[in-house]
Amino acid sequence: MSENNKRWFTEEEPDYGSSFSLSIKEKLHDEQSPYQRIEVYETGHFGRLMAIDGLIMLTDLDNFIYHEMMTHPALLTHPAPEKILIVGGGDCGSLREVLKHSEVKTAHQVEIDERVTRVAEQFFPSLCESNNDPRAEFYFTDALQWLKESEDGAYDIIIIDSTDPIGPALGLFSESFYRDCNRCLSANGVLIAQSESPLFHMPIIKSMQEAMHTAGFTEIATLQFPQCSYPSGWWSVTMACKEKNIHSFRKLASDSTVIETKYYNEKVHAAALALPNFMLTSLTTKN
Amino acid sequence: MSENNKRWFTEEEPDYGSSFSLSIKEKLHDEQSPYQRIEVYETGHFGRLMAIDGLIMLTDLDNFIYHEMMTHPALLTHPAPEKILIVGGGDCGSLREVLKHSEVKTAHQVEIDERVTRVAEQFFPSLCESNNDPRAEFYFTDALQWLKESEDGAYDIIIIDSTDPIGPALGLFSESFYRDCNRCLSANGVLIAQSESPLFHMPIIKSMQEAMHTAGFTEIATLQFPQCSYPSGWWSVTMACKEKNIHSFRKLASDSTVIETKYYNEKVHAAALALPNFMLTSLTTKN
Repeated sequence: MSENNKRWFTEEEPDYGSSFSLSIKEKLHDEQSPYQRIEVYETGHFGRLMAIDGLIMLTDLDNFIYHEMMTHPALLTHPAPEKILIVGGGDCGSLREVLKHSEVKTAHQVEIDERVTRVAEQFFPSLCESNNDPRAEFYFTDALQWLKESEDGAYDIIIIDSTDPIGPALGLFSESFYRDCNRCLSANGVLIAQSESPLFHMPIIKSMQEAMHTAGFTEIATLQFPQCSYPSGWWSVTMACKEKNIHSFRKLASDSTVIETKYYNEKVHAAALALPNFMLTSLTTKN
Repeated sequence: MSENNKRWFTEEEPDYGSSFSLSIKEKLHDEQSPYQRIEVYETGHFGRLMAIDGLIMLTDLDNFIYHEMMTHPALLTHPAPEKILIVGGGDCGSLREVLKHSEVKTAHQVEIDERVTRVAEQFFPSLCESNNDPRAEFYFTDALQWLKESEDGAYDIIIIDSTDPIGPALGLFSESFYRDCNRCLSANGVLIAQSESPLFHMPIIKSMQEAMHTAGFTEIATLQFPQCSYPSGWWSVTMACKEKNIHSFRKLASDSTVIETKYYNEKVHAAALALPNFMLTSLTTKN
């Protein structure tokens, strides 16, 4: 937060010469965990804001888009997702969406920093409303090591809900990690990872796709969606499948009362797979 | 631009408690026209920036999305668009995209403030590269009056490339104006208007759709797309057709070298029509 104007929380993107600010009513929490600085603010119009190391992780107003797009496309691409692994995801928003699917039997959440989850439980109770679901298991440990020690085919879906590819999360963007993910996925397994901004970070998206391909995945696609409080207001997830099923995803029952979504529907899912020309030009994989 | 930090151009959204800033290298132009204040800056990473009355109108980096989505969906929804009217659009980016279509015989641009176009010619030459096309005619006058005096069925396409619905542009969002547009459109005529942010401005989108319906249009749809330098990073255009043809748009020839686009393609067009659940819930028209 800029020191000369306490009314705003500002996240600068020095490499892109832009910044995004939210008006602040009150600071609710500020701690240095063993891994990172975790702050929570009450904003003027975006509800509560969580920041990690000065970067906006989520706001009440717009996190629904990210969490729905981080989860439902992957789970509906798999024919019957039962065993789910969430890497990171400490705010528990992705976990909540995963547990809306009745096919899911277990959801392991492997987050290195327990404090993120405890802070989320305190300040973002709606994101954590399914934390007591008996299918949810929390492991506060290093996901790289967790994957190395997991059995072959242990999971149907792996969701990499990480911070940016700097610092502790860097290993979560590497080919060797994707190779471990591939090994730990069952036959129809699907990996999905947050993959930064199409406007700012095409080199990252391209290298993620290439690393997933080299790691043995058969079909890879990037899905894009608006995300106001992330850099450029435009974000993406990249999905990698062991089988060719990215374009034949299941549809939510139209009368579903279990899976209520604010952003996701099957047309939006297909639309997220439609990439603009400049993305197609720079990517080897064309969705 | 914030006075205590000259390195940034900042646009605040007081109603939404957010602000977006671009780093600035140099101010290139600043004038008060008879209608508004026009500024041009050289930014750090977004190329040049034009602001009107302190609001970001466009940057070199991301204006391609807006201008392509403001034009190609409408022109490809019409079976044979020959006579085009652009209301506003003084930066000439929409005009450039319109003139890429070989079917177009005339493009009238009716912009109230000649200074916007002259400043664009000086500082954004690539947007103005088609201004000398013999099909382009510039009229610097009030578009409301222009439409009142235009003949029935004079245009195939009307593009409302206006500023926000405040001040001089307010009348461009009214039912009576849409009624004049309807009268001036030919049998398969298509109206397309910029319609603000899905995240911030659903009441405006809803009232625009309702006003277009009341004004006599048969089919109405809102298209959404990312737009980094506009509030919330997410923007929309709303299209109104005299006939039912919104979902049967023509495809660009795949080998088109005339219509080169960086954002638009037919899948992106269909994708822009796919609305998230919260938009469907709040709109009467469901695309």
